Amino acid sequence: MTAQPAIRSRSGGRSTRRALRAAPDCRMLPGLTNALPLCEVMEDSQVERIDAASMDILENVGVQFRDPIAVQDWKRAGAKVDGEMVYLDRGLVRELIKTIPSDFTYHARDPQKNVRLGGRNAVFVPMTGAPFLRDLDDVRRNPMLDDLAMFHKLSHMMPALHSSAHHIVEPYDHPISQRHLRITYSSMKHSDKMFMGMTTSPKNAEDVMDMCAILFGEDFLEDHPVTTGNCNGNSPLVWDETMLGAMRAFCRRNQPVLCSPFVLGGANTPASVPATVAQLNAEALSALAYTQVIRKGAPAIYGHYLSTVSMKSGAPMAGTPEISLMNFMIGQMARHYGVPWRTSNTLGGAKTFDAQAGYESATTLSSVMHAGANYIWHSAGWNEAGMHCSVAKFIVDAEQCAMAYRMAEGPKWGDFDQAIAAVPDIGPGGHYLGHPHTQENFQSAFFMPELFDNNSIEQWAAEGKVEITERALKRARYLLGEYQEPTLDPAKDEALRDYIARREREIPAADELNQSF
Amino acid sequence: MTAQPAIRSRSGGRSTRRALRAAPDCRMLPGLTNALPLCEVMEDSQVERIDAASMDILENVGVQFRDPIAVQDWKRAGAKVDGEMVYLDRGLVRELIKTIPSDFTYHARDPQKNVRLGGRNAVFVPMTGAPFLRDLDDVRRNPMLDDLAMFHKLSHMMPALHSSAHHIVEPYDHPISQRHLRITYSSMKHSDKMFMGMTTSPKNAEDVMDMCAILFGEDFLEDHPVTTGNCNGNSPLVWDETMLGAMRAFCRRNQPVLCSPFVLGGANTPASVPATVAQLNAEALSALAYTQVIRKGAPAIYGHYLSTVSMKSGAPMAGTPEISLMNFMIGQMARHYGVPWRTSNTLGGAKTFDAQAGYESATTLSSVMHAGANYIWHSAGWNEAGMHCSVAKFIVDAEQCAMAYRMAEGPKWGDFDQAIAAVPDIGPGGHYLGHPHTQENFQSAFFMPELFDNNSIEQWAAEGKVEITERALKRARYLLGEYQEPTLDPAKDEALRDYIARREREIPAADELNQSF
Repeated sequence: MTAQPAIRSRSGGRSTRRALRAAPDCRMLPGLTNALPLCEVMEDSQVERIDAASMDILENVGVQFRDPIAVQDWKRAGAKVDGEMVYLDRGLVRELIKTIPSDFTYHARDPQKNVRLGGRNAVFVPMTGAPFLRDLDDVRRNPMLDDLAMFHKLSHMMPALHSSAHHIVEPYDHPISQRHLRITYSSMKHSDKMFMGMTTSPKNAEDVMDMCAILFGEDFLEDHPVTTGNCNGNSPLVWDETMLGAMRAFCRRNQPVLCSPFVLGGANTPASVPATVAQLNAEALSALAYTQVIRKGAPAIYGHYLSTVSMKSGAPMAGTPEISLMNFMIGQMARHYGVPWRTSNTLGGAKTFDAQAGYESATTLSSVMHAGANYIWHSAGWNEAGMHCSVAKFIVDAEQCAMAYRMAEGPKWGDFDQAIAAVPDIGPGGHYLGHPHTQENFQSAFFMPELFDNNSIEQWAAEGKVEITERALKRARYLLGEYQEPTLDPAKDEALRDYIARREREIPAADELNQSF
Repeated sequence: MTAQPAIRSRSGGRSTRRALRAAPDCRMLPGLTNALPLCEVMEDSQVERIDAASMDILENVGVQFRDPIAVQDWKRAGAKVDGEMVYLDRGLVRELIKTIPSDFTYHARDPQKNVRLGGRNAVFVPMTGAPFLRDLDDVRRNPMLDDLAMFHKLSHMMPALHSSAHHIVEPYDHPISQRHLRITYSSMKHSDKMFMGMTTSPKNAEDVMDMCAILFGEDFLEDHPVTTGNCNGNSPLVWDETMLGAMRAFCRRNQPVLCSPFVLGGANTPASVPATVAQLNAEALSALAYTQVIRKGAPAIYGHYLSTVSMKSGAPMAGTPEISLMNFMIGQMARHYGVPWRTSNTLGGAKTFDAQAGYESATTLSSVMHAGANYIWHSAGWNEAGMHCSVAKFIVDAEQCAMAYRMAEGPKWGDFDQAIAAVPDIGPGGHYLGHPHTQENFQSAFFMPELFDNNSIEQWAAEGKVEITERALKRARYLLGEYQEPTLDPAKDEALRDYIARREREIPAADELNQSF
């Protein structure tokens, strides 16, 4: 929202600032370069200990690949295989993962919106996969394609979001078997930022690749990451056919996948933070290694979905101290292997956008910044443990990401001498509001959140006692009113539509419309 | 609430756990030893640059001490003085501050609740100074002495709070001139944790010192810090008579004060993060140095109240990226000088306990943990920029502190080998809930917040759609029902009451009852 770099780069006159206020500044912030010293809670010997425990698991416990093609691939790659069980020698794992690029550039439809990933370079990506939304009236209901389009538009307009993702919400008004086509088209059409690719089946993943080839050119794909697939593991230590098939579709076209063990700490891992990380690490390594069996040198991302589980209800929790600690540790492991890594960001377990959601989301956001995550997924909208995407929360989370972005840039020293020269100008007991340095610099010096109300209670009451949910929904409506669709080459648009029409004729829709969840 | 150390130290049987659940576990967590690598955003040369700029300010711009005694003290100490303006040579400043202890132990009425401060040792202290409260029915109104007692009881019961502070809320049903006596007594009586001492005037501070002498013994005070006074500066670069007089009362009795510049970034400092830190640092140093003029070797704490200002309304903001950055930097400066430091914690600017309050509070809490703050003040209840203390937020914030405490302890490696041994036991595709290691360890392995609801929406709806405010208020009522007053030696109690009665006869109450704010 308050995209300070834009304001900084323009002249400081009052009329300019008034003009800027008139239209929302939706220019995307460049990909983040995290300048913070990272929170590394393990000594080198502890990193080695996790590594050794993970390698022991891979060698001796083994990983189940429930997929005949993967089993055959592993045999050819020299792993010990017994039925679906694959035992990976640590030498083989290390040999394989060393060809994963430590960083790469994502290419967006608008090349100005390309972003780097890996090392200190990071991106914020909205949440995905919600079977419900809380809409512009904060009503919880099943989402439709129009709702998905709305979220893609908002993703396009929020400066700190670097991607329009894919199925932010699950569109119920279209058959499941064909949904991936419409979802991909909506991501591509409503934003020119990068986007994610559906991995709901190997064939669906192929469709996504074909659509990317239409948008960017088949040859371009060969050398340029343009999208991201997510492949969840079934912890403990299982990868299934759907995910592995989708992984192959992406890797063969040289497109990166997130290798994401799905960890509910204490339920599908041991009741220990370091042991959970060791198991998760083994799982991630097994998939990362497999990406290189599929295609040596293909980009791949160390992933995870990570929660701890309430022993009262079995439900995943958010914002707990162990999630923060595990993020710090996983960051260290990924850097140890020299692979970019993904985490989950502003997760909330609250049913409404109440203070619980705020605490959970801010705690997670802060931790993933200090952990030095690269692909910062689920960065806007997630509440109710991912069961719904909230429009209000989406807007606030995205602004929080802009604030975290600012923090991660570190202190700005450029005008230190001029700023400090104001101190003798003002002297003891004065105030700085009228000083020329203040007038020139306050907007870039101090972030002013749009969605937080800092007025007095009297003023707040006079304005109708509006809490943050309502303020954010008002902002969302305003933004959608200002939305301008980025131009898409009409020939590519037509080719995409033709592709979808053809595939929808080929894919049986059946009557599965209402069987989605 | 979920004070895991207690659970860990007992046997792991189910009946034991059931019994533990029956009564709230209110045992105080030991003083925190922060094991996180700290977020140090400045290189050594930048620390030197801030130091040099601050010393230039002290030498050339000067600090105004609006207090004849302080001016005389400074003359005797060798400073250049011109009217109320004091110019401090950097050599003098360095010489003076080097006698401030880098850490010390606070002594509580219950010696089991003594806590260390300085270096890696930190404490959580509730908010203070609210002219309003949101009460057990979430109604915003003026507080009374009974409300203050309620907050002192809750402070006593929340495991992560290490202090009962002082005027958490401002009791309106007692004359201002005598209030400090009743406030101090309430802190002392309702909790046996350490507490803060009022600094509303030099004479009031003397009364607090006298009451501490009654409680602990005059001689004991000489060698043992038992309370904390706060002395706010008037930024830029002014200290007033009230604060300096109170500072003298504390320092003479060897009791620590917080030397707290009151910074509204951009309004009473330059519009620059590093320049704001340089000015704040100069201000803090001038007061820290003065504590050593008063009494060489007296404990003192590098303080600050720190906000950035909304240029729309002039109001202080909370949870902004610059507040986080300045906390990181101030932590570095305080460690550079080898002095313990104070920060402000879960500040909220929201008018209600909504998601804004959650984001703001969690962002600040996370930042002060990564900054390595020692005296972590305003750790529970603060909302509406400090205008009210919310009972609901008090309970949730205190639990958040317990969660941050757990994070700051770092990963626990003690049972790593046993935990990792569970992985082959369970194998691919299994679950860990029934494993003996899980049964034994889940409570200590993963924090389970009491105040967060992680149930399904169906269960949540069946239970009445209770949001966090209502849950927290219910918890507060429950805790207050279980409250047990810690025994106070009847002779000391009588002596304290006699002292108050005598002073209330001596101090004119006038009719200032309703003129308090």
